[in-house]
Amino acid sequence: MTGSAIASRVLIKELPSHEGQQVKLRGFVYTRRDLGGVQFLLLRDRSGVAQVVLSKTHLPMPESSVEVIGKVVRQAKAPGGFEVQASNLHVLSEATEPPPVEMNKVEWHANPETLLDYRYVTVRGLKDRAALKVQATLVDAFRDYLSREGFTEIFTPKIVSAGAEGGANLFELDYFGERAYLAQSPQLYKQIMVGVFERVFETAPVYRAEEHATSRHLNEYLSLDVELGFIDSEEDVMDVEEALLRNVVERLEAQCQEEFDLFGASLPILGERFPRIPLMEARRIVTEKYGHQVGGKDLDPEAERLFSQYVLEEYGSDFVFVTKYPRTARPFYAFFEEDGFTRSFDLLFRGIEITSGGQRIHDLAMLKRSLSERGMSEAGFEGYLEVFKHGMPPHGGFAIGAERLTAKLLGIANVRFARAFPRDRHRLTP
Amino acid sequence: MTGSAIASRVLIKELPSHEGQQVKLRGFVYTRRDLGGVQFLLLRDRSGVAQVVLSKTHLPMPESSVEVIGKVVRQAKAPGGFEVQASNLHVLSEATEPPPVEMNKVEWHANPETLLDYRYVTVRGLKDRAALKVQATLVDAFRDYLSREGFTEIFTPKIVSAGAEGGANLFELDYFGERAYLAQSPQLYKQIMVGVFERVFETAPVYRAEEHATSRHLNEYLSLDVELGFIDSEEDVMDVEEALLRNVVERLEAQCQEEFDLFGASLPILGERFPRIPLMEARRIVTEKYGHQVGGKDLDPEAERLFSQYVLEEYGSDFVFVTKYPRTARPFYAFFEEDGFTRSFDLLFRGIEITSGGQRIHDLAMLKRSLSERGMSEAGFEGYLEVFKHGMPPHGGFAIGAERLTAKLLGIANVRFARAFPRDRHRLTP
Repeated sequence: MTGSAIASRVLIKELPSHEGQQVKLRGFVYTRRDLGGVQFLLLRDRSGVAQVVLSKTHLPMPESSVEVIGKVVRQAKAPGGFEVQASNLHVLSEATEPPPVEMNKVEWHANPETLLDYRYVTVRGLKDRAALKVQATLVDAFRDYLSREGFTEIFTPKIVSAGAEGGANLFELDYFGERAYLAQSPQLYKQIMVGVFERVFETAPVYRAEEHATSRHLNEYLSLDVELGFIDSEEDVMDVEEALLRNVVERLEAQCQEEFDLFGASLPILGERFPRIPLMEARRIVTEKYGHQVGGKDLDPEAERLFSQYVLEEYGSDFVFVTKYPRTARPFYAFFEEDGFTRSFDLLFRGIEITSGGQRIHDLAMLKRSLSERGMSEAGFEGYLEVFKHGMPPHGGFAIGAERLTAKLLGIANVRFARAFPRDRHRLTP
Repeated sequence: MTGSAIASRVLIKELPSHEGQQVKLRGFVYTRRDLGGVQFLLLRDRSGVAQVVLSKTHLPMPESSVEVIGKVVRQAKAPGGFEVQASNLHVLSEATEPPPVEMNKVEWHANPETLLDYRYVTVRGLKDRAALKVQATLVDAFRDYLSREGFTEIFTPKIVSAGAEGGANLFELDYFGERAYLAQSPQLYKQIMVGVFERVFETAPVYRAEEHATSRHLNEYLSLDVELGFIDSEEDVMDVEEALLRNVVERLEAQCQEEFDLFGASLPILGERFPRIPLMEARRIVTEKYGHQVGGKDLDPEAERLFSQYVLEEYGSDFVFVTKYPRTARPFYAFFEEDGFTRSFDLLFRGIEITSGGQRIHDLAMLKRSLSERGMSEAGFEGYLEVFKHGMPPHGGFAIGAERLTAKLLGIANVRFARAFPRDRHRLTP
């Protein structure tokens, strides 16, 4: 039997509408069980998992690709309530090695490094693909909302001649004999594009050559960038980000409930409005309420955690904007006030920073003053300064790290498992 | 007058619904004209261009950002049929230098290198932004169609340990002391992800360190990648690409007519079906019909042009699939037949190749044989081969160069003007 009589492949989720009929399924062997007289396969395709009943057949190793032809029969105990009583199993591609872990288990008790070494097959795992599905959905929701709000997508260079932040943490590259770098952020380019489309976004990789390996950093990550012009202040930027995230959460609720359930994760608590609280007040609260002395100029990771906890209790929100960072804690292009603070913000989500944003300096003289007051030379920033000779409107924006947001949404402790093929201090493969 | 009485900014395209009212506009000075008693500005915002009438006001240099408050009055001679009689002009950001070209002219008679040197402002030009708008729209249509067809978006690494094609034309990178490369294509990664989601796509930059500078090559470009599993042959892949492109063209027709008109470009002629013609037949036709001797193993640029002309005349289609390339003209992972040909194709559009695609080898033994028959060692391909131990289904895919497609759609002779900030042999800035 070649199956030529059966027109085309049916997806597993479509089985109920084919009860009593002969169908052709294609998918991966999930599990196999041979009871002598009767054999069972669980077959996985992109739409679900089905039980297949066979006899006297060579059952190939898990993860082999197969085609099954058989009759759809109601079976209460089978996943989805139907099974396929197969007359034929055709092996499309036989696995030659078993996967290093059992693919149908939700939890694996394996060394994370081993899982990442075998990522080319472990990424088929239930939680691994659920995380990537959630990420694809949130990126789609991000673009979709912004497009509706009059934003235009841009595609900016990742090979650059200088870093937006001034030089640290850059990967260096040989560009036909010239020194070049991988972009840390599309910062300057998205600002330029505000002059073209006023409102722009980009979803593209960025690069940070950070030496330290932590559970919250990646050396290559997906940055969801937004920039908009003709704003009155950073409040306009926060308005856009809040509305955007509410839309993203709404979409995840509609399309990814199954994935959240798999992780035992709950959707974000949004509250009436994301509170906007100045950094100095946040630091005071963390010290007074939790006795935590905050190190540095920013919030340290423990302070971020405690402050998020406070905001959830007091305001009923998983998100909080921390605003008005001092100039010393922000890059030279942050719009500053005479009091030494900037029109900038971070967005914390469940205890971790997922965004930096704010209003940028649009005035050439102010930009030069910013460099000079920081003791930075204009040399090396000529290309940046040049742009501001052409009437750049007041503008601002933000960037969201897609993997970090995905990890926090689903409760994934190590951000590397929220990226398909992570790059870290020690990992360049697969 | 501060404008505080007027709630919020109105977009230029909304003027007709505000006739007789006071409005606040924000935008860029497009042109200025001072007739002594009366002054005119053309103001540009993301939605359109409006005429503003003023008196006794300092008119800032073109491209300055301004806010205008005034009354909307019907005026047949003004763009859009309305003008704004302004009581107030507030300069948000004054340009300190004029742009190197007149921003409101459709055609610029300037050296292309100069235009690219000043790209940070020339990208605001009518045709430049129209091209990028068309590109954003086609990328959106690409994703949208594939998502509806059950494809999942993926985000794969651009820092890799080896090239997919085997080593040539790679940009080299220092990765914490290890040698790494910029990805030429997401080839292996999209194949791996077929094992996860069956049908995947990616829209991300890729890198080719090609020494030669031509009007059709970029060293960094946006690759629109597709890969799908459980196919019967490369015909399934061509079916997807054809349906996809028909959808993209439909969307461009609905949303970008204005941009096409600006370029004097017409939408592609699609015909009943994109013809699928074997390479050897295409070569024969070009030689017999046009007397052109085709060099190399493929079609040379002149042969591509002639063959496209033939297909348009004979089949009424701007697109044609050239199929069945010999093994020697394709990479080692192309699925081959015993006759020495592969299940692969190029897609030509208006005389230029915009896609390479085909079925890939999914069987480990066949892959090893392919390497061996080409005299290639398995060393260096271990990471690639490893993947095929885990039951990879029959699969195939293709990639479209977004800039090349955009350029051909609009009749842009130099592909660099179909990218916001092109990188070429000699250009790393802006």
